Amino acid sequence: MKFMKIRKNIFYAQSGGVTSVINATASGIIHAYFKNKKYFGKFYAGKNGIIGALNEELIDISKEDIKQINLLKYTPGGAFGSCRLKLKSSKEYKRILDVFKAHNIGYFFYNGGGDSQDTTHKLSEYCKQQNYNLICIGLPKTIDNDLAMTDNCPGYGSVAKYIAVSTYEASLDIQSMCQSSTKVFILEVMGRHAGWLAASAGILKSNKKDAPHIILFPERKFIKENFLNEVKKIVNQNGYCVIVASEGIKNNKNQFISDSGTKDSFGHSQLGGVAPVLANLINQSLKYKVHWSVADYLQRAARHISSKVDVQQAYALGTESIKYAKMGKSGIMLTIDSKKSKKYSWSIGYTKLENVANKEKILSKKFISTNGYGITQACKKYILNLISGEDYPEYKNGLPIYCKLKKTLIRKKLKKFKI
Amino acid sequence: MKFMKIRKNIFYAQSGGVTSVINATASGIIHAYFKNKKYFGKFYAGKNGIIGALNEELIDISKEDIKQINLLKYTPGGAFGSCRLKLKSSKEYKRILDVFKAHNIGYFFYNGGGDSQDTTHKLSEYCKQQNYNLICIGLPKTIDNDLAMTDNCPGYGSVAKYIAVSTYEASLDIQSMCQSSTKVFILEVMGRHAGWLAASAGILKSNKKDAPHIILFPERKFIKENFLNEVKKIVNQNGYCVIVASEGIKNNKNQFISDSGTKDSFGHSQLGGVAPVLANLINQSLKYKVHWSVADYLQRAARHISSKVDVQQAYALGTESIKYAKMGKSGIMLTIDSKKSKKYSWSIGYTKLENVANKEKILSKKFISTNGYGITQACKKYILNLISGEDYPEYKNGLPIYCKLKKTLIRKKLKKFKI
Repeated sequence: MKFMKIRKNIFYAQSGGVTSVINATASGIIHAYFKNKKYFGKFYAGKNGIIGALNEELIDISKEDIKQINLLKYTPGGAFGSCRLKLKSSKEYKRILDVFKAHNIGYFFYNGGGDSQDTTHKLSEYCKQQNYNLICIGLPKTIDNDLAMTDNCPGYGSVAKYIAVSTYEASLDIQSMCQSSTKVFILEVMGRHAGWLAASAGILKSNKKDAPHIILFPERKFIKENFLNEVKKIVNQNGYCVIVASEGIKNNKNQFISDSGTKDSFGHSQLGGVAPVLANLINQSLKYKVHWSVADYLQRAARHISSKVDVQQAYALGTESIKYAKMGKSGIMLTIDSKKSKKYSWSIGYTKLENVANKEKILSKKFISTNGYGITQACKKYILNLISGEDYPEYKNGLPIYCKLKKTLIRKKLKKFKI
Repeated sequence: MKFMKIRKNIFYAQSGGVTSVINATASGIIHAYFKNKKYFGKFYAGKNGIIGALNEELIDISKEDIKQINLLKYTPGGAFGSCRLKLKSSKEYKRILDVFKAHNIGYFFYNGGGDSQDTTHKLSEYCKQQNYNLICIGLPKTIDNDLAMTDNCPGYGSVAKYIAVSTYEASLDIQSMCQSSTKVFILEVMGRHAGWLAASAGILKSNKKDAPHIILFPERKFIKENFLNEVKKIVNQNGYCVIVASEGIKNNKNQFISDSGTKDSFGHSQLGGVAPVLANLINQSLKYKVHWSVADYLQRAARHISSKVDVQQAYALGTESIKYAKMGKSGIMLTIDSKKSKKYSWSIGYTKLENVANKEKILSKKFISTNGYGITQACKKYILNLISGEDYPEYKNGLPIYCKLKKTLIRKKLKKFKI
């Protein structure tokens, strides 16, 4: 009866760089909403994240086919659209409040990384000041695994699995060819400040000979001479060398290695890409044949090889968030808490938004091996838990079946707003 | 009884760039050999391909665990080692003959692409001249799909599936973000002269809005202005643009767009890195935010997402080759022949080696759409047949189980040879 009075509507939005399992969280929250419909009004999703709130573009979930909502769990990307937008002015906060008031929004779920948790926190505070009763719940999401207060971040485990499997496969390739051809393979992975993703390849290694032979973390300065000596040593010992490099590695002068100043065939200076810079360096200095790969979006979109644990955690965050909303909890971000037990087990908990807003958890020192080019046993154990299990999408005619939403917008009530 | 007299040994070697299913062919031929053991002597595999013959490094299959031979079917790379080595002098042919004579080799199976079929052909002719009775059978293998006389090449279907799925996934990613972030995504795929791999992404497209919006084929000259106009038009219409580019695209002056200046052992310019060049071009000319990925070895090693048809064909080539060897067929390469029926069906046939040696089948004109940036329905149908079905490896602790061979070498009988 208590909730019958409220029956406020829900606004859910996806934020920041998407992952292969952010839609699993969306699927979880929508499924839980369907089961708890009597406590809530309508369920709206923001078109292109928080931009949808600013533009009053609210997607009506009730217009979607339930089959497609089920498929969300297996679909990469942000199905409702995401954005990179930091709210800058009080005008924008006011606009969001106006839109929420106009559409009777009582629940705000924001599915994103550090910046997004900061936005959720600020919006929560703003609404309090304005005496508007809004339940604000942050749902973590980031492949970077750099959010504080949660044992890990949904999205990370799947990319970790993709990177580990891809490195394994490519290392078998180069191993076959190294006698007469390529001696070095470099895989560039994401991670501008934190080396969690690069670290994930390290789980393959059980002895010195195993790939990857060198991992380059943004937490360690890149020293050209040390690196080249290490590559040379490994090729001499092993016949080939597999390197996994974080996009964000920097030199002694704190400059990104990828800002190399090289020019392409059109005379433009080359943007981004630490792998080609390292490849050239090795080729020019050591005369080895080098192959390199940049995974970029492929890694974070690779739903076809997502980790089962990751999908389960992402989904559970969605379902649990409805539970907390029913309880009236606000100003929190849900967390994944691992239990101290022999066998890995986890549950969903929460923390106050102020504890996570704008904080960044880099790879801890105890996770990087002493020479700076590998991971420790503790790190390996941590990552292996998160890549456990497969959760394949269904296929038709050789291709995965990913969801297709109608994204029907509700009728606008307010004037246009200029972002 | 006829074969009891012969009981000659088998020499099998993997050649050229490896694929995710070349080991499936190895698994097929070894399984068939086990079933037909009474007709043959020992089964040897060349360590690092034909280099193994020159160095008298012959791997004894009987020393391997049968479980690992079974796992070969699910393992990418060339498990026995492959090489890029073109036999240059008659000294080398003589050496191979000496090694074959010393180890009673009566059957030579060479698993490779166009260059390798040429080698098989030449070795076959040489042995005839020398009155040495050697059954020479070429087993096709190339992700490039560019061998003549076979309907398709094993290895291609799996990379095609990887590229199509990866493009699909990345396109969902950019679609989510394009409103406020990245407008263009470029995936660089292999394909030096033939656009078969780039074409594979085209199967995703059923209308104008679908990704990929632009495919760049080596069969078409890259015209900067046309390309930039097309990108601009698509971003304006669609909000984002997905591009799949062959590494081998060239400009009007017949220069590779990504010419790094280095050459491989065949004297080919080493490529890789057309994506960053295109990214710069778009960014500088149109000011769009661009993301790019270079798949490189990841694509051809991606056994985790191999096509079932491809695995079946690769395996069948192995098993059938033993049948042809028993029949005494020599100087042939096995082929995959598709039947003219409504539903796709195929069988293993053969052709004379001279029909395939050093020939290259580029993407036919009728497979490229009129604007040069897409594929036709006929092409789509052809590729869809080859990516059909999934054939996942088994996993343990979150990682695929790939085979580990002992690679025990037999005792050498000859003096050392300098390659």
